[in-house]
Amino acid sequence: MGKVYIVGCGPGDPELLTLKAFRIIQNLDVALIDHLISEEIIQLIPKKTKIIYVGKQKGKITLKQEEINKLMYELAKQELLVGRLKSGDPYIFGRGAEEAIYLLERGIDVEVISGVSSALAAPLYAGIAPTCRGYATNLSIVSAHLRGNKFNKDWIPLLKIPNHTTIVLMGLSRAKEIKEEALKHDIPTNMPVAIISNATRENQKTFITTLEELPEIAKKAEKPAILVFGNVVKLNKYLLKKKNYELKSNSKIGLNKNYIKNV
Amino acid sequence: MGKVYIVGCGPGDPELLTLKAFRIIQNLDVALIDHLISEEIIQLIPKKTKIIYVGKQKGKITLKQEEINKLMYELAKQELLVGRLKSGDPYIFGRGAEEAIYLLERGIDVEVISGVSSALAAPLYAGIAPTCRGYATNLSIVSAHLRGNKFNKDWIPLLKIPNHTTIVLMGLSRAKEIKEEALKHDIPTNMPVAIISNATRENQKTFITTLEELPEIAKKAEKPAILVFGNVVKLNKYLLKKKNYELKSNSKIGLNKNYIKNV
Repeated sequence: MGKVYIVGCGPGDPELLTLKAFRIIQNLDVALIDHLISEEIIQLIPKKTKIIYVGKQKGKITLKQEEINKLMYELAKQELLVGRLKSGDPYIFGRGAEEAIYLLERGIDVEVISGVSSALAAPLYAGIAPTCRGYATNLSIVSAHLRGNKFNKDWIPLLKIPNHTTIVLMGLSRAKEIKEEALKHDIPTNMPVAIISNATRENQKTFITTLEELPEIAKKAEKPAILVFGNVVKLNKYLLKKKNYELKSNSKIGLNKNYIKNV
Repeated sequence: MGKVYIVGCGPGDPELLTLKAFRIIQNLDVALIDHLISEEIIQLIPKKTKIIYVGKQKGKITLKQEEINKLMYELAKQELLVGRLKSGDPYIFGRGAEEAIYLLERGIDVEVISGVSSALAAPLYAGIAPTCRGYATNLSIVSAHLRGNKFNKDWIPLLKIPNHTTIVLMGLSRAKEIKEEALKHDIPTNMPVAIISNATRENQKTFITTLEELPEIAKKAEKPAILVFGNVVKLNKYLLKKKNYELKSNSKIGLNKNYIKNV
């Protein structure tokens, strides 16, 4: 009997892979890849491993969730070590639990590997600390997207809580609706918002704006993007103002020097 | 001029270190260690590196926050590579931002390294997926502790939100107050709660209980512990019921086989 590893691969910077994810990736027979897995991480997969692209990206041939589940099941039945490589952490809006339950119910051995969540690494790389004292006491992570492409607005009232940080995944294309809904709840139009695109990657870009300007600025931003609402957004000017505060990864150098010999 | 790395070291399992954290740890002149850094991670620090314990644990000689800040500053001024090793992620209730701002204001080169957050890895290792469809649409991460050892109850109303997961750090010793406050807000006494002690470590232990029983069960649990409130707690019986679903780390084997030669 094979085994399925549901592996959190972090937000993109290959050096944010955990040692465990890295070790498992070196030993796979088959890797099923989501479309948000960065090219640098795909490069770390050994040549002997068969790669299957299953990510749900527009314009590419992809599999439905039920087909992905069945494929993992069939591969594991063939005594193979199967890696399901997921962006971020598998249990944060990643369907990792649904996949694990599907496989466990059918007697497949499953191991789920925690990953650095994009929801938290994106603000960090943008110089935003979601729970910095004096700025926030609590934080929420929400998705603006529900099953069936429905807009999730359940979280909008969280924006009213004082000293609260709200981190929104899959919110970029919902920027207009978010603003409209927030105004209905009397959220101040000057509420600080950050839009962070391509978090932790070479082409990461951050826009610092307000609820008022959000829909306009959102048009300029690339996907995937994470939105951050709250006073913590203002930390960006302290945590990123110095030239020497390089949060950018030296990932290629690091990987070559220390790990590549294991590949 | 030296440099300070504020390094998220994850919740304890050494294999949840990121490749970046691992690389940086191999190159430090001095490592300042919090008391939650696991022994296995301390073992990965090279012999040449001077280790200074600065964690705030009872009964041990430790430094105040201002003293830690000054120490990092002085060491960086001496052209040293300084690592501030923090449990979890540095920007999630970790004072990482305060330390980074202190150093940046004084012209010190700082790099902050994202880590696997204990708040998310603890539920995962306990078979709990914080945002599993059908169980939760959003999640919050809060601390039951405020500056000056004050009880934070601002987050209690979050427990009323349907399909919401609330993850509470530093809540174990506040279990009685949490229950009392929740009852004032008419939270149902049968609300599912998980208490997860020593998350991701060999001695991890999970109690599945309810708001009603929380204060009694909390007395049996060890620190550090994370509390999880919400329907997602029920996933535990699906995601951990099979014997072959081993979330426990094979960390020692993994580290020996793949990484230890780099140390």
